[in-house]
Amino acid sequence: MARRYDTVTFLSDYGRADEFVGVVHSVIRSLAPHVTVVDLTHDIAPYDTRGAGLLLARAAQYLSPGVVVAVVDPGVGTARRGVAVEVGDGASVLIGPDNGLLAPAVAMCGGADRAVELANPDYQLPAPGPTFAGRDVFAPAAAHLCAGVALEHLGPVIDPAGLLPGILPVSRVEGGVLEAEVLWVDRYGNAQLNVDPGELDEVFGAGEPVELVWAEGSRVAHRVQAFAEVEVGRVGVVTDSYGLAAVVLDRGSAAGELGLHAGTAVTLRPLPDGGGSSAPSAVTTSVHLSARSSRGGSA
Amino acid sequence: MARRYDTVTFLSDYGRADEFVGVVHSVIRSLAPHVTVVDLTHDIAPYDTRGAGLLLARAAQYLSPGVVVAVVDPGVGTARRGVAVEVGDGASVLIGPDNGLLAPAVAMCGGADRAVELANPDYQLPAPGPTFAGRDVFAPAAAHLCAGVALEHLGPVIDPAGLLPGILPVSRVEGGVLEAEVLWVDRYGNAQLNVDPGELDEVFGAGEPVELVWAEGSRVAHRVQAFAEVEVGRVGVVTDSYGLAAVVLDRGSAAGELGLHAGTAVTLRPLPDGGGSSAPSAVTTSVHLSARSSRGGSA
Amino acid sequence: MARRYDTVTFLSDYGRADEFVGVVHSVIRSLAPHVTVVDLTHDIAPYDTRGAGLLLARAAQYLSPGVVVAVVDPGVGTARRGVAVEVGDGASVLIGPDNGLLAPAVAMCGGADRAVELANPDYQLPAPGPTFAGRDVFAPAAAHLCAGVALEHLGPVIDPAGLLPGILPVSRVEGGVLEAEVLWVDRYGNAQLNVDPGELDEVFGAGEPVELVWAEGSRVAHRVQAFAEVEVGRVGVVTDSYGLAAVVLDRGSAAGELGLHAGTAVTLRPLPDGGGSSAPSAVTTSVHLSARSSRGGSA
Repeated sequence: MARRYDTVTFLSDYGRADEFVGVVHSVIRSLAPHVTVVDLTHDIAPYDTRGAGLLLARAAQYLSPGVVVAVVDPGVGTARRGVAVEVGDGASVLIGPDNGLLAPAVAMCGGADRAVELANPDYQLPAPGPTFAGRDVFAPAAAHLCAGVALEHLGPVIDPAGLLPGILPVSRVEGGVLEAEVLWVDRYGNAQLNVDPGELDEVFGAGEPVELVWAEGSRVAHRVQAFAEVEVGRVGVVTDSYGLAAVVLDRGSAAGELGLHAGTAVTLRPLPDGGGSSAPSAVTTSVHLSARSSRGGSA
Repeated sequence: MARRYDTVTFLSDYGRADEFVGVVHSVIRSLAPHVTVVDLTHDIAPYDTRGAGLLLARAAQYLSPGVVVAVVDPGVGTARRGVAVEVGDGASVLIGPDNGLLAPAVAMCGGADRAVELANPDYQLPAPGPTFAGRDVFAPAAAHLCAGVALEHLGPVIDPAGLLPGILPVSRVEGGVLEAEVLWVDRYGNAQLNVDPGELDEVFGAGEPVELVWAEGSRVAHRVQAFAEVEVGRVGVVTDSYGLAAVVLDRGSAAGELGLHAGTAVTLRPLPDGGGSSAPSAVTTSVHLSARSSRGGSA
Repeated sequence: MARRYDTVTFLSDYGRADEFVGVVHSVIRSLAPHVTVVDLTHDIAPYDTRGAGLLLARAAQYLSPGVVVAVVDPGVGTARRGVAVEVGDGASVLIGPDNGLLAPAVAMCGGADRAVELANPDYQLPAPGPTFAGRDVFAPAAAHLCAGVALEHLGPVIDPAGLLPGILPVSRVEGGVLEAEVLWVDRYGNAQLNVDPGELDEVFGAGEPVELVWAEGSRVAHRVQAFAEVEVGRVGVVTDSYGLAAVVLDRGSAAGELGLHAGTAVTLRPLPDGGGSSAPSAVTTSVHLSARSSRGGSA
């Protein structure tokens, strides 16, 4: 059989303390020794399919072509299907449970070309129990694909339209304010919003500060180019490495200080004292405004 | 020299925050560039040779043939020996301290064929201090084996019967109850027992619920096929991915909720109100019983 | 182009929970598929350039020749330069921000041969935002170097003497006492000092116990060869795996028990009751002394 892929990118909520990750690596290596496994992360919070789906979508455009194995699988052992979804005219195949986890990344890759249900036991390991599909179903499927097995041999072809969709929250402008949501809090405490920075410019004026309002508080946030531009005691909004607006501090955790979490609803609105898009930006620069209002705007 | 092995599987209590794991990878790569290192885990609790030995035994049958380096080594720098143990007619060699850590996996692999003490300084790194045998002794031994050095060149042959044995707790039936022990609590809080599910069927009746009793409490546990079959507020017993009985919740930590830890002694006995093997299973199904007794059986 | 290097050693404060590490691996693999990436650690405390620099210096002599990517980068997005520094007559190149992080390792490798600023956008990824230089600047530079791109093509040559230096604390003897500092606390709680054990012998007598004094307390510490030689309730000083003196317990965290941290100033002085270099070591052995004074010397 031809070697079809030589990279497996692997994502899970397995953590690192148990042997789960290493065993999946070992199974892949035993079946397809030519493959390099790249670990995306294994520290997804247990069962957090939403967070894992967003993470995979963020990473998708940077991954090496090949097979992706994504396992966050609270329904393991039940009737939920294991699937393999081909994207990019066969450039890559995404493998995992059909629970919405793969959907955002599939969308990022231009949608599914083909999909199969992983139902052929010839390409699975005999399982002492039903709870470790990563080892017994997903890793063998990935390795066999890499070794040249055709997608359709892994199980019956299914309609990609029937795959469980993921849910991506969309921001919306209403009455001059922007209703948004925290998509992700990273290691440094930066809180990514589902907001395009260009939209901030349009709604509030180019580079203008905005007021962030959430259930537990509110804060003025200043538009900056880099973390280090956020002055002490102030909150910044930066265009993050994925092109979205993120709430940040300089060398501190914005999410920790403000109490933001993945999923927190955040309203962005013009500053209460006439800043924002209604004021000429030449007069009320962000620095000027912030000097007067950053304390008053604090929660 | 012939390339004898091309995989090193690596397990330790080094954690990931220091450079220990990366330095071991680097030493192996410097001496044997053709080798791929597979990390099993490095988050074993410091000095926990028991937990590491059990983990390695669980993983053993899934590992790629080659060399295993296992380092949990509270006696580093003392007279405890470093050893290399060949198993499977030379298919694999396990390397580590002779402190019982390797014993369960060696047993899983059918016992030791040959063993040597890692005493030949020609296959070690010069050590500034005696405390990092993973870098100075075990990694070089693994790399040289992979590069084709014969086992017996690493040091004097020793009698495998003289290796320190590991201790595997065995469950026992006594007066209609099963005395067991928690072997392992995984990331999700599932508590693996040293109990074959078939033994549960024999002692308590096929698929019958049982009462779990431990020092701090007791709970009725229902036999299930998958986590998702455990009803809210109830405790399940599933056949886990290694074929042993595990105490579980659906999307929750059974160990956390019940206060179970690796090593906790657990007694399994028939339900107090006539359930279990003494009652006809057609009359008192597990669902029926559990509806009446799951609260009453709680701690 | 010739394949110039086949190993990238990678160190960061990215943590493992986000996709940062995996994305850097993926970018390198996409641009230079022949490369193996060795992770040194990614659990450096956020922004801790000092700790990362020391870690890299400790590891330097054990690394495979090739490219090192080190990213602890609080100034990302500002005018701080990204640099590539060649050492060892081209044996290795260290890549990262010019913030002192690389300096200790460069010194360990004999100093910089050449250096360039990573300013050529042809060897960078187009960045949606400026905050992920590891992905957009450092990883591509490393991969292109591995693939054979010449160092000077990555950007303008700069004077290595102008690179930001790292700061390595130096111990000093003053009035018969040794003023030292904790360089590093490892996973096991061993506290490495910036002290050569030979210096202890010279100042206090060969193998003699010393009194450790720090802001919050003091303790007698006994010179030992291995952790297991430290008696219960006592503190030991061992020659650690990098040849420096480290404060240790047997199977316990010395740093945790004593309240030592990276950066803690520690004074080492002779025992108050006539121990140390002024007493004949044949009469007051370390064991003898410790039996009388370890309690009295406790904080």
